[in-house]
Amino acid sequence: MLSGKPPCVNGERLWSRLMTMATIGATPQGGCNRQALTDEDWQGRALLSSWAQAAGCSVRVDSIGNLFVRRPGREESLPVVMTGSHLDTQPTGGKFDGVYGVIAGLEVIDSLNALNVTTRHPIEVVVWCNEEGCRFPQPMMGSAVWSGRTPLEAAYALADPKGRSVRQELERLGVATGAPVLRQPVKAALEVHIEQGPVLERSRKTIGVVTGVQHMSRHELLVVGQEAHAGPTPMEMRRDPIRVLAELLPAFYAAAQRRAPDARLTVGIIETSPGSPNTVPGRLRVIVDLRHPLLAQYRSLREEIDRLVAESLQRQGLEGSIRCVWEAPGVEFDAECIDAVRRATAALKLNAMDMVSGAGHDSVHVAAVVPTAMIFVPCAGGLSHNEAERALPSDLTAGANVLLQAMMSLAGAGA
Amino acid sequence: MLSGKPPCVNGERLWSRLMTMATIGATPQGGCNRQALTDEDWQGRALLSSWAQAAGCSVRVDSIGNLFVRRPGREESLPVVMTGSHLDTQPTGGKFDGVYGVIAGLEVIDSLNALNVTTRHPIEVVVWCNEEGCRFPQPMMGSAVWSGRTPLEAAYALADPKGRSVRQELERLGVATGAPVLRQPVKAALEVHIEQGPVLERSRKTIGVVTGVQHMSRHELLVVGQEAHAGPTPMEMRRDPIRVLAELLPAFYAAAQRRAPDARLTVGIIETSPGSPNTVPGRLRVIVDLRHPLLAQYRSLREEIDRLVAESLQRQGLEGSIRCVWEAPGVEFDAECIDAVRRATAALKLNAMDMVSGAGHDSVHVAAVVPTAMIFVPCAGGLSHNEAERALPSDLTAGANVLLQAMMSLAGAGA
Repeated sequence: MLSGKPPCVNGERLWSRLMTMATIGATPQGGCNRQALTDEDWQGRALLSSWAQAAGCSVRVDSIGNLFVRRPGREESLPVVMTGSHLDTQPTGGKFDGVYGVIAGLEVIDSLNALNVTTRHPIEVVVWCNEEGCRFPQPMMGSAVWSGRTPLEAAYALADPKGRSVRQELERLGVATGAPVLRQPVKAALEVHIEQGPVLERSRKTIGVVTGVQHMSRHELLVVGQEAHAGPTPMEMRRDPIRVLAELLPAFYAAAQRRAPDARLTVGIIETSPGSPNTVPGRLRVIVDLRHPLLAQYRSLREEIDRLVAESLQRQGLEGSIRCVWEAPGVEFDAECIDAVRRATAALKLNAMDMVSGAGHDSVHVAAVVPTAMIFVPCAGGLSHNEAERALPSDLTAGANVLLQAMMSLAGAGA
Repeated sequence: MLSGKPPCVNGERLWSRLMTMATIGATPQGGCNRQALTDEDWQGRALLSSWAQAAGCSVRVDSIGNLFVRRPGREESLPVVMTGSHLDTQPTGGKFDGVYGVIAGLEVIDSLNALNVTTRHPIEVVVWCNEEGCRFPQPMMGSAVWSGRTPLEAAYALADPKGRSVRQELERLGVATGAPVLRQPVKAALEVHIEQGPVLERSRKTIGVVTGVQHMSRHELLVVGQEAHAGPTPMEMRRDPIRVLAELLPAFYAAAQRRAPDARLTVGIIETSPGSPNTVPGRLRVIVDLRHPLLAQYRSLREEIDRLVAESLQRQGLEGSIRCVWEAPGVEFDAECIDAVRRATAALKLNAMDMVSGAGHDSVHVAAVVPTAMIFVPCAGGLSHNEAERALPSDLTAGANVLLQAMMSLAGAGA
């Protein structure tokens, strides 16, 4: 065992690489536009590969475009200990979302090289393909195929708004397509990521030990009324869908409040048609996003929302419906992986707290097939998916140190 | 005085002319697109003028494009008794809105001709220019200029979405512009119109004796929150503008209910920005339309809405505002004109009720300067500003008969 002060990553190199990567697809407002399977995405991977090769690692790409950087272990036949995230961004994305998890993984490798440590298990740093799902409409695509949750052909068939398919773009970029995606044996997988929320910052914590991911779903509420002129139509003769909204909004928030503090309810979209100032809307569309870390609470929240809608429609005598248009089951991360992260934060004497991820990550799919956990670091104001995304170099270094410690522990860095 | 059965209009001719007018700018769905100051608008006026000239009337157009058909009286120097409405339509308008009031006016003249009656006062049928305000953004433009409420130059400067001004279009269509709009002396003005609401139909009444027009205004509510990811952001850390909406919508309807049955409150537009399913909106925009026939009630409703908004913004700790973006003061019509209409419905033994107009009409401006009243007839389902606008020939004839009777009374049809 190593003794004394824990080994540390090179924080300056980590930051410098993040800033270098951010020059690829840089936007005028200081963010990045490096969407999946674009030339910029591939330039980012080429840069990463050059660093990986300089670190003595091999690089391979599977047939859905996931990229794996491998540092051999003392026992090459053992399952790998994996870390990584993604390099693709939103059209107006930031410098850290995803990128940090990849560069921090490489930093683990470079630090092990500097420490002259060979782990018992091989280490792999993965770049998952198309995590953002903004160009090709399936977030976390590469990890979904790798985990076996999405068939390869279904992913290939996804098309961007200009009609170009994932398969066409992979082939254009030189990826050999068609072969089955073979999942290598994995002992444990970790992913370090900016929180994308405000909790760590407001709680003045450096590290979030992520114990799982919320259950989440998206629901479309439609209410059909009757268009009527705002002037001549008496209130009692109207079929006004906004009456339903007036009942539901306070009831929705009350339902979330009854499951506080963990329930999350977001009304992100309200649309009135025809959208004329002096016409009672004939149609109302509302999108409601529901999340809760506990399955029973999540289910009861969904059921209550459905019941509230049915009751209000009946009370108001209007046609309408609510239906689930998207659902991502929650995840409980692996106890051993979580414990490795917890021990690392303790060894590093970092200010840490347990938390649940409110957003989806590649680790959701990974956790379905191999032991997994995540590490969060604060980002300024909780802002993400935004060109103004910011994180402190000291927090990013701390997260990478936790990753290094936990990876060394899981991969067997002892003699 | 004429004795025995009251004189009647020719209902078949009235209907036939409505249908003929509807062929100009006819839309595939059975409506009309005859927007102000288009070639179609002018074709409609040419058709009307040909009928007017065949009836022995003179036609003149003032410098804002209002058209006046004049039937001389026995005493040509006396103030005119006026009726009329508009021939322009919405882009997907119906066959009756406005057109009915003009053609019914002409029907009065043709009926007087058939009865061989010369009234003491001259009679004029007016076609107000640009009542709809859909192409050039000021509804009731021509009557506003005629009444002196809108300066001629301000109306000239109005531009359509392609940048063509009212002045340019008037000149293109051959109207001599520039001369002041002189208002001829008017003894009384009547306007017959489809109700554009459901009250007469549901009350099974043929005639609405319109005693005034509601006070009305439009208000823009803005609430500024903070965009936040629906997943990672705890409820208590959000600045969610939908919280304000959840408080305000029920409170708004309750405020209207406290002034029932005459108060009308319409939320026609709700917009959430950025409008992403998994983002707490950073901005909420709502348009509220408020109406009440009584000034005191109207004012107190406005004040209550303003107070509710201020209180909710304060309670939720969010920035925002509500401001009046449009207001049309209500009108009480002239007692003598109303009485002439009432006596006409009684003489004709028609099923009538007093009512207040919920929508604006040219008569709002006219009433500001001369004694005025309106007559409503039912339209199917209260539907208007719609290609499916419908009215029964028998109701249209009944309304024209009321107009004939009332005009004869006001213009002096006796010996």
